[in-house]
Amino acid sequence: MKATIITIGDEILIGQILDTNSRYISRALNAHGIVVAERTSIGDNRAQIIETLDRALAQSEVVIITGGLGPTKDDITKHTLCDYFGSTLRYDEREAEHIRTMLEVRNIAFNELNRGQAMVPECCTVLHNAHGTAPGMWFEREGRVVISLPGVPFEMQHLIDDEVMPRLCKQFELREIVHRTMITFGIAESILAERIAAWEDALPEYLHLAYLPAPNVVRLRLSAYEVEGKEVSREIDAQFTKLQEIIPNNIAGFEEASVEELVHNILTEKGLTLAVAESCTGGVIASKFTAQAGASTYFLCGVVAYSNDIKCNVLGVKYADIERVGAVSEAVAMSMADGARAISGANFAISTTGIAGPTGGSAEKPVGTVWIGISTPTKTYAVLKHCGTDRSQIISRASAYAIALLYEELKSIK
Amino acid sequence: MKATIITIGDEILIGQILDTNSRYISRALNAHGIVVAERTSIGDNRAQIIETLDRALAQSEVVIITGGLGPTKDDITKHTLCDYFGSTLRYDEREAEHIRTMLEVRNIAFNELNRGQAMVPECCTVLHNAHGTAPGMWFEREGRVVISLPGVPFEMQHLIDDEVMPRLCKQFELREIVHRTMITFGIAESILAERIAAWEDALPEYLHLAYLPAPNVVRLRLSAYEVEGKEVSREIDAQFTKLQEIIPNNIAGFEEASVEELVHNILTEKGLTLAVAESCTGGVIASKFTAQAGASTYFLCGVVAYSNDIKCNVLGVKYADIERVGAVSEAVAMSMADGARAISGANFAISTTGIAGPTGGSAEKPVGTVWIGISTPTKTYAVLKHCGTDRSQIISRASAYAIALLYEELKSIK
Repeated sequence: MKATIITIGDEILIGQILDTNSRYISRALNAHGIVVAERTSIGDNRAQIIETLDRALAQSEVVIITGGLGPTKDDITKHTLCDYFGSTLRYDEREAEHIRTMLEVRNIAFNELNRGQAMVPECCTVLHNAHGTAPGMWFEREGRVVISLPGVPFEMQHLIDDEVMPRLCKQFELREIVHRTMITFGIAESILAERIAAWEDALPEYLHLAYLPAPNVVRLRLSAYEVEGKEVSREIDAQFTKLQEIIPNNIAGFEEASVEELVHNILTEKGLTLAVAESCTGGVIASKFTAQAGASTYFLCGVVAYSNDIKCNVLGVKYADIERVGAVSEAVAMSMADGARAISGANFAISTTGIAGPTGGSAEKPVGTVWIGISTPTKTYAVLKHCGTDRSQIISRASAYAIALLYEELKSIK
Repeated sequence: MKATIITIGDEILIGQILDTNSRYISRALNAHGIVVAERTSIGDNRAQIIETLDRALAQSEVVIITGGLGPTKDDITKHTLCDYFGSTLRYDEREAEHIRTMLEVRNIAFNELNRGQAMVPECCTVLHNAHGTAPGMWFEREGRVVISLPGVPFEMQHLIDDEVMPRLCKQFELREIVHRTMITFGIAESILAERIAAWEDALPEYLHLAYLPAPNVVRLRLSAYEVEGKEVSREIDAQFTKLQEIIPNNIAGFEEASVEELVHNILTEKGLTLAVAESCTGGVIASKFTAQAGASTYFLCGVVAYSNDIKCNVLGVKYADIERVGAVSEAVAMSMADGARAISGANFAISTTGIAGPTGGSAEKPVGTVWIGISTPTKTYAVLKHCGTDRSQIISRASAYAIALLYEELKSIK
């Protein structure tokens, strides 16, 4: 079964916001066996909404729309859908009461605009939005379903999880979609492809292989659409076993896990702890670990040591070292990692010190120069990485390299 | 003039990656007066690529495609475009040499797959990708342009900036698109809309108003498409002046600036410094400041104090307070902020301590409870915020509230 996702909002087309809703909905549909045929973003434009909806209904059984349900005049999705399905708006007492209650908590009076939010098309099933003031809507036509959801990400997410997916599973006989990913490291994409070419050529027709390269890592994803999940999973297991024989030393893990998730799992399983000392990555490494539920069991502390004083006073870096070789140096990276480990009592610590730019570079240490330090119970060392030329790219790559370095250390623990 | 953006890749449709390329391209096109009519994501599927391209060329003068240019078999964009334009592939010596050099730096041998990357359609203009191994391509048909770019974000970005936009500006007579945003705070969207209704109704026809709500903040955007930029900017200035008279106490700033950018600007202009002590936000606040070029002039340090030991040993929180009222409390939030200010010597410090979940909540302090502390040269206080129920939502809202609190403090400085 196929679905089309439509996100509505001029703010998407002008690039003012990043569309994260499409990804969330794609994942949910895939997890339940529904193939996403297309994702489209269009403006708050009546003619365009109607045209896109016509096309989506022609190519898919399910259409999920987000956005354009706010109380203000620029939001036109509800009126357009109401007309599209030849319906009229009615006042929904239950939704009105819910909106009133939500506003009361924030000390806001219920006004004419809020009253408008409680109006819903006669012909739709209302999907109760427990976390917001714009209800979701479920329309049907000739066995096909059109679902309209608010654009606020967490409101949309709850509606997808609590209302939309259970109803779709009930209404349709869904088959399964299987995605399985093997994470390889330390081998370039073109070399990897060459080495596994014979294996790739011998894959069953229904298994699709994709290469997803990232710094230091290439993910190999096998996908099968609308199949018997268990049988296909067994086949993928067998294929991955063959692959392990071809590249035994380059496999970092499986599934969707990011490297920080792999580190999270090892630290949690082994009862080890971590501290982080960041200069150029400015908190990104800490935030990647602490984003994961359960991080508090191993993540003891992070220090974002932007100033030299903090490097020295909090982390115990020596002023003399900074004067002698500079803050972006092997010695300082090592001292930062040792310092983070010392103040926290953590088993492992990683550090970054580099030049994120756009200023601060020199001929000897150009923008993008980053030293990554690691301190373990048995040794301390640092590696030099050139992380590119653009500030956000440098921060993101340096973070990825540091976490990858920690992962390689942890993997070797028996 | 209109453009359509097509991003290609099964990994987008299954939700494995977030499509950030579309936003970057949208911004670049808007900045140069090209209206984005639609953004579409499709799979690595030949028939779908051709069908989407047909539709895009029917509705827009420019089509920008990203993705599907890697060296492996799952990437089919180049062959599909070559056939679409009735061309054949030729070996490009210059691109081959560039790929060889890029691989040499990484100690990788040039193989048959890399040779394939140097093959380009006869009929296209090659756009040199200085930062990667997949060249961009520029096709023309009946005065319309189709541009194919690699999907790796920073390679795509450099090609957009260095090759695509200069050529589009040269080839087409572009008019201007004007977007201007006023940032309001402390007033709910529905109340705001009611208060400014008369002003909104009196706006000139060609100015489109959009409301963009976020925690504590509503952005009001005025947009005009394909106009004389200077004239329209003057009109928008006049409209914003009228608006300032209606809501004089609720205006936080203008343009696209995020609240952290506004804080960045005030701290930089006034020569003030900042430190951050984070528990539940885990480094996100620090990373939002340090993402901005020039942050090192005011951002002295961040401490991600996940463990109580670090809260006490590094930030000087009292163990007795934690025992008495718990780590998630007004007293601890205030001590954390004071501590961050003390160890760094910063003028201002903010702190967060809360329960990000999914576990750790109680009846008295449910998941989502966050205390935000602020320490200034004249006072220290903390405010309690309920930041929702989902871990990532809680982290993101708590960060936004903390930065907004700091902004309100800084705004009052004369």
